[in-house]
Amino acid sequence: MNLGSDTTSPAHPRVMEALMRANSGAAVPYGNDPISHEALARVRDCFEAPEAEVFLVPSGSAANGLSLSALVQPWQNVYCSAIAHIHSDECGAPEFFTNGARMVLVPEEHGKITPADLEAAITEGFERGLHYTQPGAVALTQVTERGTVYTLDELHALTAIARTHGLPVHLDGARFANAMVALGCTAAEMSWKAGIDVVSFGGTKNGLLGVEGVVVFAPALASSVIYRQKRAGLLFSKQRYLSAQMAEYLTGSLCRDLATAANGAMTRLAAGIRKIPDAVIHHPVDANIMFVSLPRAVHRAALADGPAYFMAPEELERGPDGELIPTRLVTNWATTDADIDRLLALMSGPETPVSPAPQEQHA
Amino acid sequence: MNLGSDTTSPAHPRVMEALMRANSGAAVPYGNDPISHEALARVRDCFEAPEAEVFLVPSGSAANGLSLSALVQPWQNVYCSAIAHIHSDECGAPEFFTNGARMVLVPEEHGKITPADLEAAITEGFERGLHYTQPGAVALTQVTERGTVYTLDELHALTAIARTHGLPVHLDGARFANAMVALGCTAAEMSWKAGIDVVSFGGTKNGLLGVEGVVVFAPALASSVIYRQKRAGLLFSKQRYLSAQMAEYLTGSLCRDLATAANGAMTRLAAGIRKIPDAVIHHPVDANIMFVSLPRAVHRAALADGPAYFMAPEELERGPDGELIPTRLVTNWATTDADIDRLLALMSGPETPVSPAPQEQHA
Amino acid sequence: MNLGSDTTSPAHPRVMEALMRANSGAAVPYGNDPISHEALARVRDCFEAPEAEVFLVPSGSAANGLSLSALVQPWQNVYCSAIAHIHSDECGAPEFFTNGARMVLVPEEHGKITPADLEAAITEGFERGLHYTQPGAVALTQVTERGTVYTLDELHALTAIARTHGLPVHLDGARFANAMVALGCTAAEMSWKAGIDVVSFGGTKNGLLGVEGVVVFAPALASSVIYRQKRAGLLFSKQRYLSAQMAEYLTGSLCRDLATAANGAMTRLAAGIRKIPDAVIHHPVDANIMFVSLPRAVHRAALADGPAYFMAPEELERGPDGELIPTRLVTNWATTDADIDRLLALMSGPETPVSPAPQEQHA
Amino acid sequence: MNLGSDTTSPAHPRVMEALMRANSGAAVPYGNDPISHEALARVRDCFEAPEAEVFLVPSGSAANGLSLSALVQPWQNVYCSAIAHIHSDECGAPEFFTNGARMVLVPEEHGKITPADLEAAITEGFERGLHYTQPGAVALTQVTERGTVYTLDELHALTAIARTHGLPVHLDGARFANAMVALGCTAAEMSWKAGIDVVSFGGTKNGLLGVEGVVVFAPALASSVIYRQKRAGLLFSKQRYLSAQMAEYLTGSLCRDLATAANGAMTRLAAGIRKIPDAVIHHPVDANIMFVSLPRAVHRAALADGPAYFMAPEELERGPDGELIPTRLVTNWATTDADIDRLLALMSGPETPVSPAPQEQHA
Repeated sequence: MNLGSDTTSPAHPRVMEALMRANSGAAVPYGNDPISHEALARVRDCFEAPEAEVFLVPSGSAANGLSLSALVQPWQNVYCSAIAHIHSDECGAPEFFTNGARMVLVPEEHGKITPADLEAAITEGFERGLHYTQPGAVALTQVTERGTVYTLDELHALTAIARTHGLPVHLDGARFANAMVALGCTAAEMSWKAGIDVVSFGGTKNGLLGVEGVVVFAPALASSVIYRQKRAGLLFSKQRYLSAQMAEYLTGSLCRDLATAANGAMTRLAAGIRKIPDAVIHHPVDANIMFVSLPRAVHRAALADGPAYFMAPEELERGPDGELIPTRLVTNWATTDADIDRLLALMSGPETPVSPAPQEQHA
Repeated sequence: MNLGSDTTSPAHPRVMEALMRANSGAAVPYGNDPISHEALARVRDCFEAPEAEVFLVPSGSAANGLSLSALVQPWQNVYCSAIAHIHSDECGAPEFFTNGARMVLVPEEHGKITPADLEAAITEGFERGLHYTQPGAVALTQVTERGTVYTLDELHALTAIARTHGLPVHLDGARFANAMVALGCTAAEMSWKAGIDVVSFGGTKNGLLGVEGVVVFAPALASSVIYRQKRAGLLFSKQRYLSAQMAEYLTGSLCRDLATAANGAMTRLAAGIRKIPDAVIHHPVDANIMFVSLPRAVHRAALADGPAYFMAPEELERGPDGELIPTRLVTNWATTDADIDRLLALMSGPETPVSPAPQEQHA
Repeated sequence: MNLGSDTTSPAHPRVMEALMRANSGAAVPYGNDPISHEALARVRDCFEAPEAEVFLVPSGSAANGLSLSALVQPWQNVYCSAIAHIHSDECGAPEFFTNGARMVLVPEEHGKITPADLEAAITEGFERGLHYTQPGAVALTQVTERGTVYTLDELHALTAIARTHGLPVHLDGARFANAMVALGCTAAEMSWKAGIDVVSFGGTKNGLLGVEGVVVFAPALASSVIYRQKRAGLLFSKQRYLSAQMAEYLTGSLCRDLATAANGAMTRLAAGIRKIPDAVIHHPVDANIMFVSLPRAVHRAALADGPAYFMAPEELERGPDGELIPTRLVTNWATTDADIDRLLALMSGPETPVSPAPQEQHA
Repeated sequence: MNLGSDTTSPAHPRVMEALMRANSGAAVPYGNDPISHEALARVRDCFEAPEAEVFLVPSGSAANGLSLSALVQPWQNVYCSAIAHIHSDECGAPEFFTNGARMVLVPEEHGKITPADLEAAITEGFERGLHYTQPGAVALTQVTERGTVYTLDELHALTAIARTHGLPVHLDGARFANAMVALGCTAAEMSWKAGIDVVSFGGTKNGLLGVEGVVVFAPALASSVIYRQKRAGLLFSKQRYLSAQMAEYLTGSLCRDLATAANGAMTRLAAGIRKIPDAVIHHPVDANIMFVSLPRAVHRAALADGPAYFMAPEELERGPDGELIPTRLVTNWATTDADIDRLLALMSGPETPVSPAPQEQHA
C-alpha cells in the first residue's frame, strides 16, 4: 500500500492478461495491427464520438504536451491554474511540445478556475494586443489537482467563456474515470458535450501500466498530431502493447469499476480521517484525493509500518507532536478496505481518541 | 512469422514474466523503485561503465532524439548518412529534440560511412565559418540500416576523426546486440572503448516490448538528459515497467541469446536465398537483415501463405514473372528454423530449381 | 512632441551625421569593418570591461531574447516581474530565443522586485525538484517599467540572492542611460560591479535609430551568442550602420547628455503636474517616466492640440469631466522646455486653477 | 571599391536623404506612422498586389526565416539547393524560425534547380510516408547564388511542380531587382504571376542600409507573420527608419536604376575578364555576379592596390603564377566604369597580353 500517489499502484490483472494475449506472434508495427485498431475504436465508442481522432501515448505529460501543441501556436497563451499539472509537474512539457507557448496563470480555489477569472484573463490577453503573447487555449484538469471535481455545469460555464473568445479547451483527464464516476455521468457528457475539444484520457493512474489517450473531437484539430507524435518518439513500433492495455480498459466496465474502487476507498478513508482529532481537510474530497493536515504524532504512528504515503523523514522527527503537518493521500483501484482500516488504526494509535468533529477549511 | 521487420516480433516470455513480477504491489514512481535501480546497474555492468549515466525510454526515436539533444546545439550539424534512421525514419525527431540542429549527410556504401568522407564533411563545416551551421556531432548506426556491421577497426577509425575535430559520437544501437554477437565482442568494446560517447542501446527489436537505453559514458554530457526526458513525457510514473524489461534483458545471457537466434536465422535464410536462381543480394549480410531482389514469381510464391514480409500487392500482380523486385528481410529472436525452411520451400516452388550461384552485387 | 513613449523620438543629429560618415565607400560586411570594431571597443570602454563580449542588434526585444538565450536552458525559469518588458511586451521573444524557457513571475511594487520575493521564488523552484521547470536566471529592468530606478544597493541585494543560488542575472537596460544619470553612477557600477552578468544596453530610446548592445561580462557566457545572433537574422551584412550609431552614442558624453535631457524634461513636467488639482502620481518619478491619473477634463485640454500622449479617443469623450483617467508620460532627449510648458499650459486650462497638493499614492 | 560582395556597398544618397527626412520630429512607433504605411503601399504597388501583406525586416536571413516559418510546419521539408543562401549562409536561420523544419537538398546546375529534380525530390518525400519528414515548401533564389537568373518560363515550370503537389513556393529575392532588370520583366511577372507565394524582396544589396520586404501574396499565409516578426525582435519601435528606405527605393525608378547600374558594371567587367588569357568563367553571367578562375599572377596584380575582392593572402603567396584560383566578383549600384577599368587594367598587367578566347565552362 502506498497512498502517496495513484501512480504507485500496479496494473490490473486483466490488463496484464491482455498484454500477454497481445504478445502471441507477429504483428504489423506502428499501430497498424488489429489490437490497435480495436483500441482506438473502443475509445471512440466510450466517448460516443465516431469522428474523433485518437492517439495512444505512454504518459500523461506526453498526452498533455501533444494535445496542447495541436491547439496553440508558439506565441499563444494556455490559460491554466498555477497548480495545473501542465504548469507545475511536467518540467515544461507544454513549452517543449508547443515550441514555446506560454502558460498564463488563472487563480484557482480548491483547484478550480472560475468563469469570471478565466474571462478576465482572456480579456486582458486580447486587450494587450500584439505586444503580449496571444490568447490560444484554455486548459482544465478533471479531477483537479486538489482532488475536487468540476460539475458538468461548471465545465459548461468555463468552456462557454472559451468559445465566446474562439479558444479551444483541453481537459487533462489523468483521472478522467475517477471524475466520471464521481459525477455519475458519461465520458461524452464530461467532454465534448461539455464543450471540451481535446481530452488527455488517463489510464496509467487507474490500472494500466502506462497509457493515455489523446482524444481530439474535431478532426480539423487533429491533422498534425500523428506527425508530432512520431517525431516525439511517441509512436511505437510495438504500439500493440499500448493498445492492448487501452482496449482491455474499455472492455466491459473495467475503467469505471477501477475508478469506483479508488473513489470508494477514499470515501472510507475520509470518513475515518474526519474522526481524527485536529485533522484539517483542506479541500472537498470529491474523488480519490485528499489534502489533509494531521498532528505530527498521528503521522508518526501512521508511518510506523513503512511509507504509506510521502513524508520527509525529518518532518516526522523534528517539532512538537501536536503540530499539524500537511500531506496528500491518494487511493487507487488496488487499495483495499483492509489497507484503509489498517492505516486508520495506525493513525488512531493504541487508544481510541475522543475528539470534536474536524474542521473543514474549505467549507 | 513476419520477416518484414524485427519490430513485428513479440516480446520474449522471460520478459513478460519479469513484467508480471514487477506488477506485484505498490512501487515508488518515476524510477525511484528497486527494479529501476537494478536495471540501470545492469546496463552499466553490461557496458563495464560504472560511471555511465543511463536513461530508459520507450522507443528508439526517443533514445536517439534525447541522445543527440545532449550532444549538439541548435545551430550545429549532426553528421550521418542519408539512410540513417535519425534522418530517414523518425519524422524529424532529432530536429525536434535538438530544437533545430541539422542532419548533414555523409555518403554511405552498404550503409557504412568512410573516414575519408566523414573527414571531408566535417572539414567543410569548419571551413565555412560562422555563416554555415557548425559541426556538432557524428552519428553512426550499428547494425547499419543496410544490415552491415562496422568492424571495431572501422568504428575506431571513424571516432578518431570525430575526436580530432572535438566532436562527440553517437551510436544508434537499435540492433546493438545483433552487431555485438556478429562481431563477437563486448558491449564496451563496441562503444566507449571504440570512442563512442553515447549509445542508444536497443531492446525493442530484440525481445522487449519497448525499451531502449540512453547510455552516456561521460557524465558531463548527461547533465541535461533527465530534464529533457521529463519534459518530453518520456520519464514515466510507472517507470518500473520499462525497467523490468531491461533488467531481465541483461540477466544471464538473454540479450546475446536472442540476438544470436536472430542472426542465426538470417544465416540459414541467406544460405537458402543464395540458391534461388537470379536472386541478387545487395549488401553483405552481417547480422539479421538482408536486402535482396527476387523474381516476381518467387515473391508471389513466398507470399502465397500470407504477409511473410512487406510487399505492395500491386507489385506482385503487375509485370513479368522474371522481373526482379527488391525487398528487405529481417529475422528476429522468435524466427524458427521451421519458419525459414517454410519460406524457402515456398520460394523454391513445387519443383526444386537448379541454378547458378547468385550474384552478390556488393562483392 | 509625443510623450506617449520615448520610442516616438527622432534620432539625434550627431547620430545621423555619423550614419552619413559611415556611408562613404565600401566596407567589409558582417561587422568586420573598422567602425564596428570601434563601436565594440567603445562599449567595452564605457563599461570598463575590456574582457566583455559585445553584440549589437537592432531592437530591445532582440537584445533581451539573445541575452536570455545565453543564460538559460529551455527547461529553466527566468525570474522576472509580470510587468517586465520581456514578459509583457515582446510577444514571447524570450520563449522564442530560448526555445521555450519559462517566465516565472515575482511580485513587484512600483516596478521593483524585492530580495525577499526573489529569494522565495527561486527557493520554491529548487524545492519542487525535477517535475517543475528549473531555476535558470534572474531578469531585472533598469529604469523599471514603472519609471523607478533601483538604487545600487537594491541591485546588489538582488544579485546577491541570485549568486547565492548560482543563477546569472540579466539587466534589461532599454533605458540604461536614464538610470545611470538618475543614480549619478558609472555604467560599470550599475552593471558588473553590481553583480549583473549580461546587460541589454539600450540606445534606441535615447537618440539612436535602433541599436542595442548585448554586453556579456563573463566571456564563458558569450560563446553561443554570435551563432544565435546570426541564425536569428540579427547579424547584418551592413552591420556598420548599427555600429556607427553606437560609436557616436559613446563618443564624448552624448549618451549621458541625452539621458540628462530626458530626465530633466521629466523633472520639469512632474513639477508642473504636481500642481494640477486631483492629479495622482502612481509611482516615484525617478527618471523619464511618469504614471499619472488626471481628470478627464485635463486630458481633454491637454490633447486638444494633437496626440501629445496615448489616450483612446473614446476615453476622452465618455464620462464625467472630473473622473481620473490614468496615462503614462515619457520624456525623451528631444523634449524641450517649450514642449513641457506648452503641455502644462494646455492642462491648466484658460484660468489657473488653485488646488491642494496632489496625492502621491506611492508615498 | 570592393567587388567581393554587393553587401560591401554603401547606401544610395537618396536613401540617406530619405532617412534624414524621416528623422524630423516624433512618430508613432511600431510601424503605425505615415512613412511606414507609405512604404507598404509602395511595395504592394510595385508588385501590383493590392491584397499582399508586406512586412519590412532588417536582413535577408530574417526575411527568409520569417517567410519560411509562414509556409512550413516543423516536421516538414523545404526543398532547396545545397548552395541556397537559406541552407549555406544563414547558420540555420530557417531551422530557427520554423522550429526545426528540414532543408532537403535538390541538385542544382549553375545555381538552378530543374523541374525533374524537384519533382523527384518531392515525390520521394510523399512516398516515404509518415516516417520521413513531410513535403512542405519549395524555396528558389533569384538571382541564384551562382549569378544566373531563372527565366520566367523556368520559374513557371518549377512552381507548377510545387502546385501540383500542393506546396507553396518561396523566392529568396535578395537580388530581386537585379534579376528583374536582367529579365526585363515586372515584379509581378517574376513573382505571383509566376506562381511564387512569398518573396523576400531585397533592398540591402541594392542601395539600402538594410531592409528587406517579406511579401506574402495570399493573405491566408500571412496571418502569423506579424506575431513571428514581433517575437523575433524584428518589429522595431522606430520602424519608420526601415520604412523610409523602402519607400524611397520604390519611388520613381530607383530600385531598377540601381540594379541596372550593377548589372551594367558586371557586363563591362565580364567583357574585360573574357579577354584575360586562361580565365575560366564558371557560370553564365546573367546579372551582377561572376564566378571566375584566374591565374595566380593575375590575382596578385589585381589585388596590388588593396582588397578589391575576397582572396586569402596565403592563396596569393603560395604556388605557381599560372595556377588558376577561383573567386567570386560582384558588382553593385556604386561600382563605376572607372572602378571596372582600373581593375581590368591591374589584371592585364604592364603589357597587354595576347591570348585566345577564354573558356566558358558552362557553355
